[in-house]
Amino acid sequence: MALIVAKFGGTSVASPERINGVADRLIRLREEGNQVVAVVSAMGKTTDDLLALAAAVNDAPPARELDRLLSTGEQISMTLLALALEQKGYKSISYTGRQAGIQTNGIHNKAKIVKIHNERIERALDAGFIPVVAGFQGIDENGDMTTLGRGGSDTTAVAVAWGIGADVCEIYSDVDGVYTTDPRIAPRAKKLESVSYDEMLELSSAGSGVLQMRAVEFAKKWNVKIHARSAFSDAAGTIIREETPMEQAVITGIAHDTSEMKVTIRHVPDTTGVAAKVFTALSENMVNMDMIIQNTSLDGATDISFTCPEADLARAVSAIESVLPEIGASGWDVDEDIAKVSLVGTGMKSSPGVSATAFRTMSENDINILAISTSPIRLSMVIEADEVARAVQVLHTAFELDSDSIFEETQLSAEEIAAKMEKGR
Amino acid sequence: MALIVAKFGGTSVASPERINGVADRLIRLREEGNQVVAVVSAMGKTTDDLLALAAAVNDAPPARELDRLLSTGEQISMTLLALALEQKGYKSISYTGRQAGIQTNGIHNKAKIVKIHNERIERALDAGFIPVVAGFQGIDENGDMTTLGRGGSDTTAVAVAWGIGADVCEIYSDVDGVYTTDPRIAPRAKKLESVSYDEMLELSSAGSGVLQMRAVEFAKKWNVKIHARSAFSDAAGTIIREETPMEQAVITGIAHDTSEMKVTIRHVPDTTGVAAKVFTALSENMVNMDMIIQNTSLDGATDISFTCPEADLARAVSAIESVLPEIGASGWDVDEDIAKVSLVGTGMKSSPGVSATAFRTMSENDINILAISTSPIRLSMVIEADEVARAVQVLHTAFELDSDSIFEETQLSAEEIAAKMEKGR
Repeated sequence: MALIVAKFGGTSVASPERINGVADRLIRLREEGNQVVAVVSAMGKTTDDLLALAAAVNDAPPARELDRLLSTGEQISMTLLALALEQKGYKSISYTGRQAGIQTNGIHNKAKIVKIHNERIERALDAGFIPVVAGFQGIDENGDMTTLGRGGSDTTAVAVAWGIGADVCEIYSDVDGVYTTDPRIAPRAKKLESVSYDEMLELSSAGSGVLQMRAVEFAKKWNVKIHARSAFSDAAGTIIREETPMEQAVITGIAHDTSEMKVTIRHVPDTTGVAAKVFTALSENMVNMDMIIQNTSLDGATDISFTCPEADLARAVSAIESVLPEIGASGWDVDEDIAKVSLVGTGMKSSPGVSATAFRTMSENDINILAISTSPIRLSMVIEADEVARAVQVLHTAFELDSDSIFEETQLSAEEIAAKMEKGR
Repeated sequence: MALIVAKFGGTSVASPERINGVADRLIRLREEGNQVVAVVSAMGKTTDDLLALAAAVNDAPPARELDRLLSTGEQISMTLLALALEQKGYKSISYTGRQAGIQTNGIHNKAKIVKIHNERIERALDAGFIPVVAGFQGIDENGDMTTLGRGGSDTTAVAVAWGIGADVCEIYSDVDGVYTTDPRIAPRAKKLESVSYDEMLELSSAGSGVLQMRAVEFAKKWNVKIHARSAFSDAAGTIIREETPMEQAVITGIAHDTSEMKVTIRHVPDTTGVAAKVFTALSENMVNMDMIIQNTSLDGATDISFTCPEADLARAVSAIESVLPEIGASGWDVDEDIAKVSLVGTGMKSSPGVSATAFRTMSENDINILAISTSPIRLSMVIEADEVARAVQVLHTAFELDSDSIFEETQLSAEEIAAKMEKGR
């Protein structure tokens, strides 16, 4: 018998039928002898619909009102799940972020959890209820609803799991675990039995969409074991936890990300303080720079390139335009057709030669590396976007990650595979 | 300069465009020098949509969960109205029932307001905001959301008006005031400048849908002046307040109601306690009996008839079937094709002869009266449903209520007239 927090994303609760499916799974967990608390996201496209309504009356909606508006989405799905459980003969009770005791700071739209009071959840469990908690939301000290930003429901689940001392936080989604790489582009990808928090963080930041980084950070900090698994099958998924002392592969997984762009500022005078001016302006405009590349200086001028999310384009343009006259650069351009491929593994720390193998593999396959960055457990390479699938495949083979058999998604329907392409929150 | 609470029903906030219209009206009230607090219902059909979702997962949804689910409707409309006001350059802030300090008892789905703490609203007004309050909802002592039942948003508005000591509670809807009778069936109906609380209560209970009875009861109890007016025109509506000492017409208005049915139990033995058994069973089954008619006894048996809302049919059937064997009646039948026409006026108290005039008018026009009931300021008659329009017209003329000109709805569009047929909450 275990105490389990089970979180279900928007795709899993997108219709009354799917909500019934989630209820059945919770009941199965209960009948297997576990105590269980559910955490839910808003149904399917609810959040987008609410955002569209807000945009129809206000082109820059104030954050407090927007938070209250968006938080209704999870309140709808949580009550429907509680109603479905009751219909099936199980006592259930739903709790908003406030009622679940999720206290946050007052930073609307991306609040941070500062305290958790889980008494109501614990009392409900003791009384034999299956509590259902609204993900993504909390309450600040003014009593105003705050939302936790992207990945907020995963964070809620991990926070509740920590608060009630759950044995595991199961995160159900349309993906059935963490793979050595994206099975859609590398058919020989393998599902990982477990990864460490640090590896998962690097994989998430490098573009793997299975879990939101903040939730993994929270889980790491408070040592909450996560089980990432499929909402549509009973197969075990991937456990995310502290590093295990077992022998490890050098590389655990390969992530890729095509959502970044490369900006190049041409012919920047190579004098002190110029680069600082550029990057200060970018920071002040909230552009999330990832890699920075400065070419060798030719005739006293150089090209400065950096990568950042494509979503930051407008802010990047405004930052660059503001400093361009001052620094005397000749111009700038943007290349959105780039991709980042990242090798991740704690085994890298004790295995020199990872970069040598990586670069040799890329070179043998005529894939041009535009930029490189590293962390102790990650090596990222920027390449042309149309090379990304081939790069992932050859690296996957080179680092001996290939499975014996071609990956087959026997447990997912066509609709569910299509759903995998969507991003929940 | 006045302090005004302005309540807008579901039709008035049914789309972003209409929400913008509501915002414009609030701004006009502000620019005329008033302080203003808005109270809103859920957008258009939101409540019905939420009920359909609940019904899809539970055929008898527990009240606590249903309340939470339904309360999201008003939270969506309130934030959108606040966003629309902000967009137009006015500071606005939205409050849930909890934040507006509407404390209720714990009777889910039809909670009663027990306390009001309006500090947040008052502080917001002082700081120059236009506060927007979610109608229909409050919070019980467990911190659970409760809804106030049908007419709940009107009740919220009156309660807030009382709480902050507003000069008037303006209730905007798709009807532009209280008429001497329904203008759709009596073209010579006149809009009333004012009616007393008691008259309004009798008119509401007799089928006039302009205001919900509970809100009028609350307003009477706490002496809150209501102004019932159109959301789609600037014309003054009807003031509902304490009786004025002015000379009054004998009859203020004529209401009609076709939502009742007549049930007749045939050949009931005329012995002590039989009628009591029938009516006890009906009460215990929550059948809201209106009028009761017992015919003269023939050969020791009689027919007992009563009227009640058609919505109570299933419960009435089950009550009657449970006592039928015991009382030895021969059977029963239901007539849904009846209507109730009610004359209402505080002037009745000091004017004998109202019933004589009414009965003579009906008789002269060959309209058969099936049952009669009275209060000090009301005379109701049950007739065949297909006579109702003619009955209203001839009574309207007989009691000298006819306007000089045929009623013309120049201020309403075709769409708005269609919307008048809908019922909000």
